[in-house]
Amino acid sequence: MTFNLYFIRHGLAVERSEHTPDGDRPLTPEGRHKTERVVKRLRELGLGLDALVSSPLVRAQQTAEILTAVYRLPIETWPELAPDTPFETWLARLLVWQSENPTVAAVGMVGHEPELSNWAEILLWGGCRDAIALKKAGVLGLTIPRTVSPVGEAFLFLLVPPKILL
Amino acid sequence: MTFNLYFIRHGLAVERSEHTPDGDRPLTPEGRHKTERVVKRLRELGLGLDALVSSPLVRAQQTAEILTAVYRLPIETWPELAPDTPFETWLARLLVWQSENPTVAAVGMVGHEPELSNWAEILLWGGCRDAIALKKAGVLGLTIPRTVSPVGEAFLFLLVPPKILL
Repeated sequence: MTFNLYFIRHGLAVERSEHTPDGDRPLTPEGRHKTERVVKRLRELGLGLDALVSSPLVRAQQTAEILTAVYRLPIETWPELAPDTPFETWLARLLVWQSENPTVAAVGMVGHEPELSNWAEILLWGGCRDAIALKKAGVLGLTIPRTVSPVGEAFLFLLVPPKILL
Repeated sequence: MTFNLYFIRHGLAVERSEHTPDGDRPLTPEGRHKTERVVKRLRELGLGLDALVSSPLVRAQQTAEILTAVYRLPIETWPELAPDTPFETWLARLLVWQSENPTVAAVGMVGHEPELSNWAEILLWGGCRDAIALKKAGVLGLTIPRTVSPVGEAFLFLLVPPKILL
């Protein structure tokens, strides 16, 4: 038994400034527009999602809302998808989630770099060499075995920057 | 200094039979049509190639001919891209090639599975766990440092099945 995990990086957000805490930075109009086009294209291509999970940060939530508008799925928010979360913390949440959602075949997770690509590497090879690049509004697709220890057991089938999907 | 290496798996070919040696199997009409659409789409998306290398097998050569028609590049044929070639044999040829082609920024290499995805894993992580899937007429993009030992030093930026490119 396996499920597909799609890591989706948030779209382009406004720059950091004194007046905007990092977690409150929204998508730019261009970031919103490009993300909308990417998500519509994913749906057209037949990419199915049964569940949607997001980091609590504004730029991730806004990206998840774009996914919700197309996929008609509720957003589940995980603090474990926020920046600087250790892999083990996120994995513990994933394992609880997969035991609670045994029939989900494909889940989208909206989050941040470098966490998403680093976690993907650990799931694929058991370690991280910063060898994968996930662009803003890009998508990375993994097949994950439903075991208590998926580390080093995943399978990579998709890595696309948004320009491929526009 | 780096260059981009695009591994391109040949398109769908006719099945093995008593009368057709493996190396002589041509693309099916569907395989040819889908590969043509994929290659045109890659060009539309701005994927640039400066050089084109192919396995000598018929299904790879026919795939390379489709690339040639769109990219207007000559086909260089390497026996080291044929099935069952050890990674080290292919790498030795690559190192000679890169010293002879110091200005090439992007090369397409048409070959076979599981060799292409296994070699990609070795370039990325120094070993292979069969953790990457490259579909027929799919594309895998790596950035390779121009060093004498790129093993474990590459960077993955693209992995697309053909359905994303149709």
